[in-house]
Amino acid sequence: MSEPERDDRYQGYRGPARAALERYGIGVWSEVEVVNDRGSVFKGVILPRSETFDDLHIVIKLVNGYNVGVVANRIASARELGYKKAVYRIPEKAFPVDSRKKNVTLLGTGGTIASRLDYRTGAVIPAFTPGELYGAVPELADIANMDTKKLFGVFSENMGPEQYIALAKAIGEEIKRGVDGIVIGHGTDTMSHTGAILSFMVQNSPVPIVLVGSQRSSDRPSSDAALNLMNAVRTAAECDIAEVMLCMFGPTSDNYDLLHRGTRCRKMHSSYRSTFRTIGATPLATVSRDRGENGQYFKYLTDDFLKRDKTRVPIINPSFEEKVTIQYYYPNFNPDIIDGLSSMGYRGMVIAGTGLGHINKPLYPAVKRAIEKGMTVVMTVQTIWGYAQMYVYDTGRDLLNLGIIPMDNMLPETAYMKLAWVLGQTDDPAEIRRMLLAPVNHEITPREPHNGYLVLQGGLPEVEAFIGQHWK
Amino acid sequence: MSEPERDDRYQGYRGPARAALERYGIGVWSEVEVVNDRGSVFKGVILPRSETFDDLHIVIKLVNGYNVGVVANRIASARELGYKKAVYRIPEKAFPVDSRKKNVTLLGTGGTIASRLDYRTGAVIPAFTPGELYGAVPELADIANMDTKKLFGVFSENMGPEQYIALAKAIGEEIKRGVDGIVIGHGTDTMSHTGAILSFMVQNSPVPIVLVGSQRSSDRPSSDAALNLMNAVRTAAECDIAEVMLCMFGPTSDNYDLLHRGTRCRKMHSSYRSTFRTIGATPLATVSRDRGENGQYFKYLTDDFLKRDKTRVPIINPSFEEKVTIQYYYPNFNPDIIDGLSSMGYRGMVIAGTGLGHINKPLYPAVKRAIEKGMTVVMTVQTIWGYAQMYVYDTGRDLLNLGIIPMDNMLPETAYMKLAWVLGQTDDPAEIRRMLLAPVNHEITPREPHNGYLVLQGGLPEVEAFIGQHWK
Repeated sequence: MSEPERDDRYQGYRGPARAALERYGIGVWSEVEVVNDRGSVFKGVILPRSETFDDLHIVIKLVNGYNVGVVANRIASARELGYKKAVYRIPEKAFPVDSRKKNVTLLGTGGTIASRLDYRTGAVIPAFTPGELYGAVPELADIANMDTKKLFGVFSENMGPEQYIALAKAIGEEIKRGVDGIVIGHGTDTMSHTGAILSFMVQNSPVPIVLVGSQRSSDRPSSDAALNLMNAVRTAAECDIAEVMLCMFGPTSDNYDLLHRGTRCRKMHSSYRSTFRTIGATPLATVSRDRGENGQYFKYLTDDFLKRDKTRVPIINPSFEEKVTIQYYYPNFNPDIIDGLSSMGYRGMVIAGTGLGHINKPLYPAVKRAIEKGMTVVMTVQTIWGYAQMYVYDTGRDLLNLGIIPMDNMLPETAYMKLAWVLGQTDDPAEIRRMLLAPVNHEITPREPHNGYLVLQGGLPEVEAFIGQHWK
Repeated sequence: MSEPERDDRYQGYRGPARAALERYGIGVWSEVEVVNDRGSVFKGVILPRSETFDDLHIVIKLVNGYNVGVVANRIASARELGYKKAVYRIPEKAFPVDSRKKNVTLLGTGGTIASRLDYRTGAVIPAFTPGELYGAVPELADIANMDTKKLFGVFSENMGPEQYIALAKAIGEEIKRGVDGIVIGHGTDTMSHTGAILSFMVQNSPVPIVLVGSQRSSDRPSSDAALNLMNAVRTAAECDIAEVMLCMFGPTSDNYDLLHRGTRCRKMHSSYRSTFRTIGATPLATVSRDRGENGQYFKYLTDDFLKRDKTRVPIINPSFEEKVTIQYYYPNFNPDIIDGLSSMGYRGMVIAGTGLGHINKPLYPAVKRAIEKGMTVVMTVQTIWGYAQMYVYDTGRDLLNLGIIPMDNMLPETAYMKLAWVLGQTDDPAEIRRMLLAPVNHEITPREPHNGYLVLQGGLPEVEAFIGQHWK
């Protein structure tokens, strides 16, 4: 679930510590002899570090078995005596199968789904097969029977149409096999994008489809990896919601994860664990370690969802037009970009406009030309929260008259996925418009009466409740 | 402060009411005779409406002086007898000058700064000159002596380099004239963009420079216009902070506005009043109607700001390179866009990457080509909150090696403004990099130890304090 290891030789080393490794031509798994400025000699193997650790020390596993941190800036000399890469595997134990438990398939897209830290060596041991997962997170066996399939191995920023289509098809196959739920391990960078496209490509699912990842790799003490994975498997196995969801760390405590609807979720912080937010709606449910009064792990925050029903036949429609773009408006946005996109053959453009869905006047003729040439142009808002309301001002109405289609409060990235999915199926303008505006899965939510205050929490029930009282 | 009136003939009418006006060829200020399906006859003048009102009624000022709302869908016939546009002006009263009070100049950029609703007619009367402002918001005379200058009249989405440069020069002139503070009336769509560019163009100011606007036009009962304007004038006249700031509605109550630093502010909801958020920092201060224990209208939330000092000489540097763009990354973002921008002569590009600052692998060669051709490429994060941390993974380091400059937690829109401002001054790569990374006014804020929870409030001190306790 964390990203694949992106580094090898200097794994986890930064700053002065890394500089020292580079200076002496040594790296992780080097057998070394290091002497510091007091003359102390350290012989052993350099261990990988986690990026959370400080950048001042180099950690050496001494021959006596102890680990020691040597201050990088006080190293007087160091030389490599050899190289001894430790490859550790979690002992494969058969994942215990219990016929009373539900069957869950975990689909891998890249990176480490789970891992275990070897405290003797500091090594991070990745786990993926059912047996390895059982070794790394034995609690899983209490939750469900598990099967795993590695579909491909890419960083989440490299996910694209090819992977979306493969995922949609694999989901269809697992459903056909009769599993009770599907978990998809995914990097967090574009997890909400994948949630959006799968919501369109896989409709009418009989079972839950749960994307899960972690913001901190599983070798870190503050990792959310095991918690998220267990809660995702609980969701796939037993949750009533048969939709595409993200299962990620809830914001108030380590006690629960939140289930976010695939079309309404956005990553809102580059590094915090509680980074995902349901925008313009309430999250679907919380998932906790323990069963609540309803006998379930879940506290449902709405009842407006597709219920689990194993007799339902899914619709798998893996269409995707590649020539689609998102453009966030900024002052002085120049018409040459729109003309350029049009001449490069772009068939669709999502604009994230300012305010209620505005762009500057000099763009109007370029938008008109692009639409006349066959580009579908839709309007969303760059404020993230709120609605494109293009009937309020004449300027908005002018844009509507040019043929721009307002997407209300559809998130720009969700609108991008829907537009690519629709344009993958038709080039008839009327049909494109009809499909864009026909709801698939809450990609537009109704406006609710409000008091004019913006609650950015969007996924934090007890705090929301408090703020509600406090603010009104 | 609200946008200029964008509509005339159907001002404020929407839906069925507007459709009825169009059907019968009548509009605002038409003298009409309307008959409904029960045979009742209404003779009078059609009044403009506010967009907040319902879309079911047409309001007619009857000849007897009463206003009546006629249900649009029950109109049987209607004809125009004439046209009687009422042009109302607030009686010009001399703005009372008090030599003990501070002198504030209000610069107009477009739209209505303030207005008064004429309850007899329903007409909205715009106010701009000091005399009109005094007529509309008489409390202003208790706060400061006021002068006003209309620089130009554009919707805020049409603000661009020409206006920024004119504003920066006008600010310089007002400072030279010796005013105690400057207020800039501005539409909210791009107010934070203007706050960012003015922070770079006008440095070392001796006095406060305060952008102000309103999310609800001043004819609406829930308008924040007068409150924001009064608080902006209080800030310009007496606040200790001599920086470019936004003065907008605070989120918890009508009791105060928040002062946001120009480089760190973002509009986060398309329609709510409490839409502006300071991102990655605490707002500078609150401004209230009444003086607090410190004898000031302000509660300072930090002391890390440039203090008011009328002897200080400002640096006015109105540079702006027009060939700069922002691109928010999305899955399957295609290299042809970057190649296209490069061949169109774009000299600068802000990427808002995923996660810690990532883009997909196929873009690397295109970025390399663009940089080799002389484009400056900087990285920000599309999560809005958090930092580009490009040293964490090999992929990030690869991007750094291509020459991408990481902007830490600079907001994408602030990075755009800084890049345009820097490229307006030099084309020397080393100097560009130096200037981009040299702090001007807190456009990058230091990382603070945190508990891993994302507090999206960012500008809500008492609620923050509570959440702090609650979450830890």
